[in-house]
Amino acid sequence: MVTPIDPTATGFLLAENRTMPMHVGGLQLFAKPEDAGRGYVRELYEHMRSYDSLDEIAPLFLKHPHRSARTAGQLVWEIDELFDIDHHVRHSALPKPGRIRELLDLVSRLHGTRLAWERPLWEAHLIEGLRDGRVAMYTKTHHALVDGVSAMRLLASVLSTDPDKRDMPAPWASKPGAKAERERRDAERRGSDLATQALRGALGITAEAAGMPGALVRTLRRGIRNETSSLSLYAPRTIFNQPITGARRFAADDWALDRLRGISKATGTTMNDVVLAMCSGALRTYLLELDALPDTGMVAMVPVGLNAKQSHLASTDGGNAVGSVMVKLATELADPEERLKTIHASMRDGKQALASMTPAQILAMSAIGQAPAILTPMLKMSGLVRPPYNVVISNVPGPRTTHYFNGAKLLGTYPLSIPINGMALNITCTSYDDKMCFGLTGCRRTVPHLQRLLGHLDDEVKALEKVAGTYL
Amino acid sequence: MVTPIDPTATGFLLAENRTMPMHVGGLQLFAKPEDAGRGYVRELYEHMRSYDSLDEIAPLFLKHPHRSARTAGQLVWEIDELFDIDHHVRHSALPKPGRIRELLDLVSRLHGTRLAWERPLWEAHLIEGLRDGRVAMYTKTHHALVDGVSAMRLLASVLSTDPDKRDMPAPWASKPGAKAERERRDAERRGSDLATQALRGALGITAEAAGMPGALVRTLRRGIRNETSSLSLYAPRTIFNQPITGARRFAADDWALDRLRGISKATGTTMNDVVLAMCSGALRTYLLELDALPDTGMVAMVPVGLNAKQSHLASTDGGNAVGSVMVKLATELADPEERLKTIHASMRDGKQALASMTPAQILAMSAIGQAPAILTPMLKMSGLVRPPYNVVISNVPGPRTTHYFNGAKLLGTYPLSIPINGMALNITCTSYDDKMCFGLTGCRRTVPHLQRLLGHLDDEVKALEKVAGTYL
Repeated sequence: MVTPIDPTATGFLLAENRTMPMHVGGLQLFAKPEDAGRGYVRELYEHMRSYDSLDEIAPLFLKHPHRSARTAGQLVWEIDELFDIDHHVRHSALPKPGRIRELLDLVSRLHGTRLAWERPLWEAHLIEGLRDGRVAMYTKTHHALVDGVSAMRLLASVLSTDPDKRDMPAPWASKPGAKAERERRDAERRGSDLATQALRGALGITAEAAGMPGALVRTLRRGIRNETSSLSLYAPRTIFNQPITGARRFAADDWALDRLRGISKATGTTMNDVVLAMCSGALRTYLLELDALPDTGMVAMVPVGLNAKQSHLASTDGGNAVGSVMVKLATELADPEERLKTIHASMRDGKQALASMTPAQILAMSAIGQAPAILTPMLKMSGLVRPPYNVVISNVPGPRTTHYFNGAKLLGTYPLSIPINGMALNITCTSYDDKMCFGLTGCRRTVPHLQRLLGHLDDEVKALEKVAGTYL
Repeated sequence: MVTPIDPTATGFLLAENRTMPMHVGGLQLFAKPEDAGRGYVRELYEHMRSYDSLDEIAPLFLKHPHRSARTAGQLVWEIDELFDIDHHVRHSALPKPGRIRELLDLVSRLHGTRLAWERPLWEAHLIEGLRDGRVAMYTKTHHALVDGVSAMRLLASVLSTDPDKRDMPAPWASKPGAKAERERRDAERRGSDLATQALRGALGITAEAAGMPGALVRTLRRGIRNETSSLSLYAPRTIFNQPITGARRFAADDWALDRLRGISKATGTTMNDVVLAMCSGALRTYLLELDALPDTGMVAMVPVGLNAKQSHLASTDGGNAVGSVMVKLATELADPEERLKTIHASMRDGKQALASMTPAQILAMSAIGQAPAILTPMLKMSGLVRPPYNVVISNVPGPRTTHYFNGAKLLGTYPLSIPINGMALNITCTSYDDKMCFGLTGCRRTVPHLQRLLGHLDDEVKALEKVAGTYL
């Protein structure tokens, strides 16, 4: 069976090369249920791989890109008739001593390996061997199949808030029950969770962006060059804005939402401002240690959800869309309080400016954020004197209650994203339960000792708490 | 740097597809040295990955195939300027309970995944987590770089007979010391080990075979069709002689050379006859269990070393070459003694016939054995009524003394080979120290429950020992 590939997916497939694998990932940490026997992880794995016939797997997880004379050289989706679940669902273990460090090493390595086009574009690795007994799952899905947010949603769609619920299907199952459950949850979300819904709608936007007419591209280029738009800033050159290699480093950690909320309330800023201030302070310390901090402040590209009225845009999900705000990170300032204030003001200005932009401008700005890999060659960004921004920082709201997969409690969920040439570091956060989970994905060579950013993020939370304390 | 790819290597690259990865593998089992600390495996891994600049790696391990407009569409070798040792040298662990079963599962999975052409065509996995404390190493090298025997040799080249020798280089190191050591060992082998030398020379032959003129192809096809040659037999159809998938199953075990030698001496047969009889009995039992034993006896293709006078062939290593003998496995006979006798007689006849063949005929026969994947399409074997043989069984002599890698004692070394369409099972043995090590590589779908063959091989050794006991 052969089906056409939409322009966005084609864009992600064609943009991919050895140094830029185009898959998103998710790392989930679970606690075993209390009644787990010795064979629990193996049984979970056997359950995950028990979907081995074509009709038990959802079509999304069966198709692979194919190009041949028969398809006149066009890329098409083809069902993998030789689908082999054991290639996609794997049971792994960590070397001793089984710390989070060994887990992140393994996940970094897995995330740095391209998915072979000759098979469906996904993998799921169930990982045991953490010395504290936790179990990890790393999933990898090509951006041509889903965007990062949808991938995290898909993983979450099979979770339950009921710890006693077992026999839950794997995310790739096509079982009617699973589908019904997913649809019910989709409906729930449509009612309750506009911001993430907005991000999901972004896929619709990028489809238009990939086929964006020349006039729009010109608008966008003017915007980036700061000729017209107050949103665009000159960003300094940093080590992050270089060509990258295919090697990846992933680092992840989480912080209590209560701590971030405390800072936000005491300082009159938003949670998102606090997240950006954490990143700003951590990046400043990191670059100072490397003697690579630019004199002028760094700029982050931050995707934000827009409501229908703001966006004036039709999208696949009924009027919600994503805009991008260029935020001053104030990394040139030593005082965490000043940084937070500057970020708060810059974010507020950016959102206001976004509200006054024309739909075409918003579309163009959104496109930079959602499909940089596609747009970079189109815009010939490399020909610009400076990068339009230094780093992408996304903050995606997630579920605020505890979830379980077949009795295993989900402790945290950390997104892995796609570094591209000129944008070697990506920071994506997602809230889950009572935590803010950070996932940092970088090129291992371009961003040395990436894991140090975790310590710096932690220091920054403390510094911001001190600031907030004086505000109280 | 761009260098041409020789015709044989090009053949292996072009023959490769999703269901036929063209890499050979080796599984080595080590005992940790007695003075090993807790961090021993990690230190060994750090040592293995410590070669991270281009000039520390041997050129063989730096080149990858490349085709572009610049090379006029031709495949060429190109040095990977972005070489990343962490992509090639990996530290893995086994899930619990860490039995040999879990090891073979992991190695099967690793062997079933294609090497990406965009990087140098090799991987080495250091594997911990065996519950008995042993350490495993699985290496994977594309057949376009080395043939299976050379790959095993390359691995062995960095081993020492001295348990106290440490700081030994990795096989991929280009250090002058390593090179000197390897050359010394090569020289040693040239003097002492003609049979393996002969196999290594086979690479030279296949290079000629790939460019084999039409007359030769015609000779070969006549041979297969049993029109001219006493060597060629009609082989029955079996489950092994079907199209294959990309899924792999690997099984491995070893038996004491003393036991095989006892059988051989008591029955007046060769060690190789005993190995073939083991395989024959095991295949018979395996197929009987599946109710798939053919009525007529199966035929094995067995590569044999030829001396210069026999072969009349020039080869890269000064007159040694490899011929192929088609051996009756006598799987239709229930009596192990009768099977061993038939195999012994068939092997003797085959070698005699080989001695009377013309060089062109030997070359043609050799080519079937060494480059079946290349020759299958050329000969349109699929158009023949029956397969020319049912299974490939190779027996490659190895070192007869205990070897060490940085103090770790090598306990066994098991070759992984390449199943191809129509030849879903490959059995390769190699002697090491006081053992005969068997590696069975098959398509997981075409050859179900491959691991059962290990039990059957063990039963067959016992059965042959009973036969030998009556002879004594």
